[in-house]
Amino acid sequence: MGRVLSEGRAYARLAELTDSIGPRLAGSPAAAAAEKWALARFEEDLKGTGGRAWLEPVKVPHWERGTVARGGLLAQPGFRAQPFALLALGGSPATPPGGLEAEVVEVDSLEALQAAGERVRGKVVFFDHAMAQPSDYGRFSSLRTRGPAEAGRLGAVAALVRSLATASLRSPHTGATNAAEGAPPVPAAALSVEDAELLHRAVAAGPARVRLELDSRTLPDADGHNVVAEIRGREKPDEVVLLGAHLDSWDVGTGAHDDGAGVVMVMEALRVIAQQKPAPRRTVRVVLFANEENGLRGGRGYAEAHAAELPKHVAALEMDSGAGRPLGVAATAGGEALMRRLLPPLAKVGAGVFLPGDAGGADIGPMRPAGVPFVAVRVDPTHYFDVHHTEADTLDKVDPVFLAQDAAAVAWVAYALADAVEVLPRQPPPAAGGAAGRH
Amino acid sequence: MGRVLSEGRAYARLAELTDSIGPRLAGSPAAAAAEKWALARFEEDLKGTGGRAWLEPVKVPHWERGTVARGGLLAQPGFRAQPFALLALGGSPATPPGGLEAEVVEVDSLEALQAAGERVRGKVVFFDHAMAQPSDYGRFSSLRTRGPAEAGRLGAVAALVRSLATASLRSPHTGATNAAEGAPPVPAAALSVEDAELLHRAVAAGPARVRLELDSRTLPDADGHNVVAEIRGREKPDEVVLLGAHLDSWDVGTGAHDDGAGVVMVMEALRVIAQQKPAPRRTVRVVLFANEENGLRGGRGYAEAHAAELPKHVAALEMDSGAGRPLGVAATAGGEALMRRLLPPLAKVGAGVFLPGDAGGADIGPMRPAGVPFVAVRVDPTHYFDVHHTEADTLDKVDPVFLAQDAAAVAWVAYALADAVEVLPRQPPPAAGGAAGRH
Repeated sequence: MGRVLSEGRAYARLAELTDSIGPRLAGSPAAAAAEKWALARFEEDLKGTGGRAWLEPVKVPHWERGTVARGGLLAQPGFRAQPFALLALGGSPATPPGGLEAEVVEVDSLEALQAAGERVRGKVVFFDHAMAQPSDYGRFSSLRTRGPAEAGRLGAVAALVRSLATASLRSPHTGATNAAEGAPPVPAAALSVEDAELLHRAVAAGPARVRLELDSRTLPDADGHNVVAEIRGREKPDEVVLLGAHLDSWDVGTGAHDDGAGVVMVMEALRVIAQQKPAPRRTVRVVLFANEENGLRGGRGYAEAHAAELPKHVAALEMDSGAGRPLGVAATAGGEALMRRLLPPLAKVGAGVFLPGDAGGADIGPMRPAGVPFVAVRVDPTHYFDVHHTEADTLDKVDPVFLAQDAAAVAWVAYALADAVEVLPRQPPPAAGGAAGRH
Repeated sequence: MGRVLSEGRAYARLAELTDSIGPRLAGSPAAAAAEKWALARFEEDLKGTGGRAWLEPVKVPHWERGTVARGGLLAQPGFRAQPFALLALGGSPATPPGGLEAEVVEVDSLEALQAAGERVRGKVVFFDHAMAQPSDYGRFSSLRTRGPAEAGRLGAVAALVRSLATASLRSPHTGATNAAEGAPPVPAAALSVEDAELLHRAVAAGPARVRLELDSRTLPDADGHNVVAEIRGREKPDEVVLLGAHLDSWDVGTGAHDDGAGVVMVMEALRVIAQQKPAPRRTVRVVLFANEENGLRGGRGYAEAHAAELPKHVAALEMDSGAGRPLGVAATAGGEALMRRLLPPLAKVGAGVFLPGDAGGADIGPMRPAGVPFVAVRVDPTHYFDVHHTEADTLDKVDPVFLAQDAAAVAWVAYALADAVEVLPRQPPPAAGGAAGRH
């Protein structure tokens, strides 16, 4: 762990990824460049260690933001016409050429949308909410992921979603929105918090009308790859401790916290573990998933391709919450006893604490039904949603010291789990529709 | 004072100004609309009080941002080509059509620019700096106001200035840049802090080249007006306590903190003073200056037009630092004793403190040579430069409670100075080139 702190390469590597490749949405040339970059860096790190790295193909969505994203409030009594700061949501189709104009119906929940029912036909649905802190993300994110499709099902012509943000300087936050089964997708965009506040005032004084023009489009699925690297275990090479992060990012900003930070943490962990002699008992495998942001094809593809191996995946950990300072570790049910035995060295980076709550991650989620135990290194989320999915998710927001501490914590947890005599308990399969495994 | 807090109109009026008129750069149609709005509101406020309001013409600069503002880093080893978040600086000319490309020379001070000398010929000068807190603004703002002109004098083809900011989410801060005498102006833009950090890294790894395209232009001076309103004093109507703020704003955001907040504070102060029976001994006059941001023509015009009256301007106060919570009061030299006697009621809003340092303001500055004493109500500056001169200077950033407290403090200070038996001491004329009057 000490080596990661004193001689770590995580920050320099994050600078390289973000400055030389930048944003890397699945299906884009930059995503392909990032895969090539990651493979080359793994090969450097593993040279002479017996470890190896490879690509595993997955088909990924191929959505393009386009070049037109504009909209605004139309003039109404007490309000001048004014442009919005907005970003198309990932997966949004284009508006009709020249854009659309319609009256706005504001709702603050999916239930309120259903209650509005026929009232939204031919209208733009505006999803407002009260996100104020990082822990609100889970509560309100369905407005973005499901709201536009549900609005479309009710006949709305477009959707505007207040950004899921904990800070704003007129900065819209993009993110994925899902298509509805059996209904055409509707154009959907995120408004900056400021513009959501404006639209809220205008609707209150209403009726309010808006215009929206987007030229986003979805192309046929593209070829992407999970980038995988591993050090084989010295005693039980078929038992795997998996470290994950996602190599794709949104196409705004440079994906520094989301998830460049996670990528360089798990790469760094493997690099230092590869230098340990002897190697740990079990295999440590890093997977840089190809497509978390808008499709989860990376995680699903890995779980499918490795289905036969998953019973011997003894732990999986995903870093995908930015590079705040490390706070502690967590695990799925029954993992506490073993994890507590790993804590002492983590105190050095302030993370020698076992934290309640589930462990998991979007990309490792598809391994849950196979009973794979999950662990987590939790990081301070305070400022993550200030920049998440925005033009401001850039290198300067990442603290090199915290990043190194996170990487050190991941390295230690991975090494210790891979070298422990015991293993974490397997997880029960999730109950249908339930949240089994949460505790 | 209590009435401003309990029945104040400041916030509602700020909403009206920012939502219905929005940004109002001098010379623009919105600036004219703002003058008309302010005059009408003054007339409403003063109806039946004996007070009156009027317009005083001033010629103002007429600069237009245009519609093209783009630029970015060109690809170099280790760096992909990437666009900058930038805003033209007010007063910048256009680039040649199609833009320009050149190598970058980075400097961190005007002295470093002079030292670079001939090295900047044909180059883009990048002014980087280390602004970290509000009090750094004065120290670094000359890089924006004077830097581009000085760079032009040395033969640079353009200038990029790191935004003067205390927070950034990829948000460039515009502001005025001055023309140099005897040298053609050069295109100049503010970079977001993130892009300045990127460019700094690229220059360090350099050589770095950038492209820049602006279509800003300066038109002939336009007609603007200071909007003036007053309540005549009951005993000494020729003695004036002046409250100032500037009605113009930058053309990005809606000028909520800068200086819509000041505008509504001084309007509110006059409104409540006009309701006092009897009126205070002296006249209270509010001046909403026409052009602070890019020319100071409002303040200069007032001082010229009212030169004969200035010996009887017994105090001037300008609110132009946003609507943070009130901290206390300040005054020019010798004003402490009288100001301290006004403090007790200010304790109610947390401002019952006499603060060291000079008082002043850009628009009232031209009255300094006439010896007019200045006073100030200081407000918490912590978040002012987060939004100052950006798209994020919007209503939602203004706290209604602090705004009301500020307005109440201004109302009390103005009333008390207008009704006091004594007056503040006149100020000595500034020494040539010095900063006389500061203490």
